[in-house]
Amino acid sequence: MIDPAALTEDLIRCASVTPQEGGALQLLERLLTAHGFQCTRVDRGDVSNLFARWGQGKTFGFNGHTDVVPVGDLKAWSVDPFGAEIRDGFLYGRGATDMKSGVAAFTAAAIDFVTESPPDGSVVLAITGDEEGPAKDGTVALLDWMQTQGERMDHCLVGEPTCPDVMGDMMKIGRRGSMNGYFTITGVQGHAAYPHRANNPLPAMARLMDQLGTATLDTGTAHFDASTLAVVTIDTGNPATNVIPAQCRATVNIRFNDAHSGASLTDWLQEHADEVSKDFNLRVDLDVSISGESFMTPPGELSDLVARAVQVETNRTPVLSTSGGTSDARFVQHHCPVVEFGLVGKTMHQVDERVEIAQIHQLKSIYTRILRDYFA
Amino acid sequence: MIDPAALTEDLIRCASVTPQEGGALQLLERLLTAHGFQCTRVDRGDVSNLFARWGQGKTFGFNGHTDVVPVGDLKAWSVDPFGAEIRDGFLYGRGATDMKSGVAAFTAAAIDFVTESPPDGSVVLAITGDEEGPAKDGTVALLDWMQTQGERMDHCLVGEPTCPDVMGDMMKIGRRGSMNGYFTITGVQGHAAYPHRANNPLPAMARLMDQLGTATLDTGTAHFDASTLAVVTIDTGNPATNVIPAQCRATVNIRFNDAHSGASLTDWLQEHADEVSKDFNLRVDLDVSISGESFMTPPGELSDLVARAVQVETNRTPVLSTSGGTSDARFVQHHCPVVEFGLVGKTMHQVDERVEIAQIHQLKSIYTRILRDYFA
Ligand SMILES: [Zn+2]
Ligand SMILES: [Zn+2]
Repeated sequence: MIDPAALTEDLIRCASVTPQEGGALQLLERLLTAHGFQCTRVDRGDVSNLFARWGQGKTFGFNGHTDVVPVGDLKAWSVDPFGAEIRDGFLYGRGATDMKSGVAAFTAAAIDFVTESPPDGSVVLAITGDEEGPAKDGTVALLDWMQTQGERMDHCLVGEPTCPDVMGDMMKIGRRGSMNGYFTITGVQGHAAYPHRANNPLPAMARLMDQLGTATLDTGTAHFDASTLAVVTIDTGNPATNVIPAQCRATVNIRFNDAHSGASLTDWLQEHADEVSKDFNLRVDLDVSISGESFMTPPGELSDLVARAVQVETNRTPVLSTSGGTSDARFVQHHCPVVEFGLVGKTMHQVDERVEIAQIHQLKSIYTRILRDYFA
Repeated sequence: MIDPAALTEDLIRCASVTPQEGGALQLLERLLTAHGFQCTRVDRGDVSNLFARWGQGKTFGFNGHTDVVPVGDLKAWSVDPFGAEIRDGFLYGRGATDMKSGVAAFTAAAIDFVTESPPDGSVVLAITGDEEGPAKDGTVALLDWMQTQGERMDHCLVGEPTCPDVMGDMMKIGRRGSMNGYFTITGVQGHAAYPHRANNPLPAMARLMDQLGTATLDTGTAHFDASTLAVVTIDTGNPATNVIPAQCRATVNIRFNDAHSGASLTDWLQEHADEVSKDFNLRVDLDVSISGESFMTPPGELSDLVARAVQVETNRTPVLSTSGGTSDARFVQHHCPVVEFGLVGKTMHQVDERVEIAQIHQLKSIYTRILRDYFA
């Protein structure tokens, strides 16, 4: 029996700030190899990843990451972020919730399951060392490698924290898309005392950001929250109060549901840019970068399986959500049906990140039940 | 006979970038002392100033500055900015138009006038080494010193460039006021994927700057152009596109006529700030700094005197204007009636700043005629 809390402690002691491997994947590789998993290190660029398979045939996969975000203001921590200290039933440390406990829980569940009740099928663990960073050589590298090797998963669960308040209250079946729009408005510089000789880009940018920042994109769809647009920065950098600046830049971030696509929103942004350009007689440039389109694994076999296990172990029926930030599920969805379920993520990325030890055990039980039901 | 063009050359060779005296005031002090002027160096802080008086009684004063703005991009100049090079009838150098030629013209006019036709009265030159800088220890220091010494001027002419296109086309009888409004909007930081948990200050700032930047303050008054408001900078400094920032800052610069005051405009800005604060439920802070209220020497004796001299020497009737940026006339107006007249300022503060040599001689003739008529 693998103790998932002790394993979480061991992982926290590995200082695996992206892209540092920190010993975390090596530790998992040794453990999994010792219990009959075939392990392959799939490293790319400066990133380390681990692929582990037990058995053959119908395959259930787990995906997760051992890398963590930086500790931030070290002095603000009341514990050593890599000390794995325990207080009042909570285990403290960077990655305690996001997501070394999740990795430990599915690793422990997988090992115990294949050891105690070997299934007629296969369990895969695809663990990356770059989810928090650029994520270009992380889960993507694992999936690329699997493709070339003929390795596959039939269904996958990503073990990220998904519960907003209490264990079991939410799972995720997809995510909104995400894109950035970068606007540059160029006018004519001049003296603030002679504004008619200049053409100030700032009122135009103000008009544009007011319009975009207060627009309603939609009111939500069947499985998705409303799309949102956040004006994240407006910058000019003009230190002289007697000078009208020549240029201003602004960035908007859009999280969008299945009523939109990156392309349709690019058109929408361009229309607004063109209108302001015409109204103010100014050049308005728009660059977009689409981080990901929206995606969803429609409610069905996989979500039912996970929801049932959560229900039995926690006595709560998880909401099937598509809310929140991005995760590696956006890569896995191109490979096979994928859902996400993990513990309560309240302290993730924060100072004094911590996890309730009982929750780690409960999470292992849920993952174990999912495997049992999947191969039943 | 003092050659005002040669004197301008000598002054240009003094590298008197604010607050460097550069030898310019020393040169003038020697010259004026040699011709019977009583000179006093009125230095304050790191700034040098020169007060010179000839005679007693009814006093006509000239005010000007020998300091210059920095050369900027030296490689962009086709001449040495402090070389006083002459090409095709133009004298090149930093300060050629703003305003070493003006200082040279009124110094030459004053010396020749008191030497050749000594008036029953007095001529004062109040020359500062800090008009382009903070201007806290420049003309203000001269006026403060005059106050304590019982020194005074009955009328004053500031020799700044005033003509937009051709010699004689404009003089200035006042200036609009100038003030800055500094806005800070503070919201609640958050993740761009969860905008309902944050409160973004940017759409509110955009609304406020759109309103202010496109407002009409007035359409002008009897002697003043319309007041103007320029949004000069909007800044956030948020590098993370997945973060809604907590704060945004913006600055507006207002040039205002006699329909307003710094206080009335502060109230007006505050009303807009309060409205946006209420509409967006955000804290909006406003700081203001009033650089100067609007002022005017009403058309009359002094402006008639100057306009007549310009008319005779240039065959042009100067427009009586209150347009443009600030000048030390804003300080002098508290002391005595003041107007401004000087040459064409097209290249001031620019690369390859230059003055037509014939214009320097013409300007000396105008200043000489003003003195002759004043004491006639
Ligand atoms: Zn994570
Ligand atoms: Zn000047």
